[in-house]
Amino acid sequence: MTGWQHIAGPDALNLDLINRAEKLIAPYIVQTPVLESTVLNAIADAQLFFKCENLQRTGAFKFRGAMHALLNLTAEQRKQGVYTVSSGNHGAALAAAGSILDIPVQVAVPSNAPLVKKDNIANNGAEIIEIEPGMAAREAFIEEKQNQSQRIFIPPYNHPLIMAGQGTAALELVKAVPDLDALISPLGGGGLLSGTAMVGHSQNISVFGIEPELANDAYLSLQAGSIQSALPPKSICDGLLTNLGEHTFPVIQDYVNAILLVTEDEVISAMQQLWQALKIIVEPSSATVFAAVCKYPEYFQGKRLGLIISGGNVDVRRLPWPVTLLEKAE
Amino acid sequence: MTGWQHIAGPDALNLDLINRAEKLIAPYIVQTPVLESTVLNAIADAQLFFKCENLQRTGAFKFRGAMHALLNLTAEQRKQGVYTVSSGNHGAALAAAGSILDIPVQVAVPSNAPLVKKDNIANNGAEIIEIEPGMAAREAFIEEKQNQSQRIFIPPYNHPLIMAGQGTAALELVKAVPDLDALISPLGGGGLLSGTAMVGHSQNISVFGIEPELANDAYLSLQAGSIQSALPPKSICDGLLTNLGEHTFPVIQDYVNAILLVTEDEVISAMQQLWQALKIIVEPSSATVFAAVCKYPEYFQGKRLGLIISGGNVDVRRLPWPVTLLEKAE
Repeated sequence: MTGWQHIAGPDALNLDLINRAEKLIAPYIVQTPVLESTVLNAIADAQLFFKCENLQRTGAFKFRGAMHALLNLTAEQRKQGVYTVSSGNHGAALAAAGSILDIPVQVAVPSNAPLVKKDNIANNGAEIIEIEPGMAAREAFIEEKQNQSQRIFIPPYNHPLIMAGQGTAALELVKAVPDLDALISPLGGGGLLSGTAMVGHSQNISVFGIEPELANDAYLSLQAGSIQSALPPKSICDGLLTNLGEHTFPVIQDYVNAILLVTEDEVISAMQQLWQALKIIVEPSSATVFAAVCKYPEYFQGKRLGLIISGGNVDVRRLPWPVTLLEKAE
Repeated sequence: MTGWQHIAGPDALNLDLINRAEKLIAPYIVQTPVLESTVLNAIADAQLFFKCENLQRTGAFKFRGAMHALLNLTAEQRKQGVYTVSSGNHGAALAAAGSILDIPVQVAVPSNAPLVKKDNIANNGAEIIEIEPGMAAREAFIEEKQNQSQRIFIPPYNHPLIMAGQGTAALELVKAVPDLDALISPLGGGGLLSGTAMVGHSQNISVFGIEPELANDAYLSLQAGSIQSALPPKSICDGLLTNLGEHTFPVIQDYVNAILLVTEDEVISAMQQLWQALKIIVEPSSATVFAAVCKYPEYFQGKRLGLIISGGNVDVRRLPWPVTLLEKAE
């Protein structure tokens, strides 16, 4: 990730960086709404406030971090353009941010990525480069790029500027909803959770990260005291399959109260309940937070809880529960 | 509707009534967000602003009118309680509004109403009374109720207080988004459209009402100059099957630029596009507005358009497009 040394910024995340990120990105982001539901409150026996980053530009919180990184580029770096490797939300977010700021964006996409994800990246104005699936092809691509181009690599989560951008969702939430007892966030690579944790800690609000049981690498990492991989990570939560990074891990070690695990079935049930009650499209990764609130009353019962709904990028023709066809009139 | 003479209020809708309704109901409603999508703008070749009443309490704009009616009751009337006949969004809205204001609510529900709709009414705290399906049973119930009880009947749309409450959605929208060229609303009984039309007219904004071809009673009514029925009205848009009323019809005659028709297939296609791009659950009735914007470029191309998304009450296990099962990890 040599490209990153060209971007000015601190070596580690701090609260001031999140506060400045909020002001920097404000003109470009959607101030996403906070939704409530008496039905879901009753199910969870708690008072729930959903920060709806699925309604963010490109359908996920990732736009905040990508935009924050691009706004920290020098004029010269902007001209060179940027690139990343992503089959999902980060690629689309970087594409949209680059398009708004007139910065050329290349996104390397594994050839087996779903068409709907590729479309989301291309529709937002990035150039797509197909690479072989897997970690080796990904790293080879980045190395070749670093050697042969002046473009800046924008990683999906493991950088203080990205983490600070993602933390602004929690910052908006705690400003909108006073006296929260806890913030609850999905946990993949830790970009969203580390920013959320720093915000929560600064206000004496507990912070929980939620992981699928089948991709419990962060849970294992905290137990071991060093970054672990879940091998192989697998889950319907396609946004939560990545490992922690050397920037996100220490923040999560220091500021997260607990990492809680949920099963695939719990995620699917929670996802359906969120769709039905909140009237929003929530992706499996984001449903983990409501699943955890229902599963762990010892942490959450009777509390005021801020839940980050991280994204809504699903193909509405492929759902994890059985659907019968509603007939039109003839 | 003899009960209604007990409620103070003007004989016809006027702009001042909508302005006062906005202030009255503000403490109780969700100030619903206005969403945008570059993808949908590109499809429609116009600039679209979606007022998301599917994110309103009980999942539909109906809560505005119901709350406004209840806030106009005298203390004595509040004690007597209210009732309505509804198999859908109005029943749930009245239930929730009554529950918040501590006013007893009875909702008569046709025995063939879907379970999910009955649950939505009961979950919001109303007493449910099952009646036979059909207009005759409905009118018999209301007449019996008027004779035997002091409860006030709260109609679903055909009253100036209800229409004024529904108009507040458009009022919020034009305040949030300057320089709109047109407001576009679904058209069932005309409560939402009449309020929207009065707001649009006051600001020199064109207003369009959208109806399913198979339930085109309002379209026929404007042609005939008197209220017509579509016999039998039928459509996947279950919120748009009602006739105009004597209060809503003249407002629509005077202030609506045109009524446009869309087919069942156009509604289903628009609904899927809205779910996919906006990341929100939109019911078929609400998808009519986007379908119309795509279908009638002669009215809408290149314009700044405010679209009222009226509700999101669908059973997410019954959808009008084929869905394949997304497998969980094992």
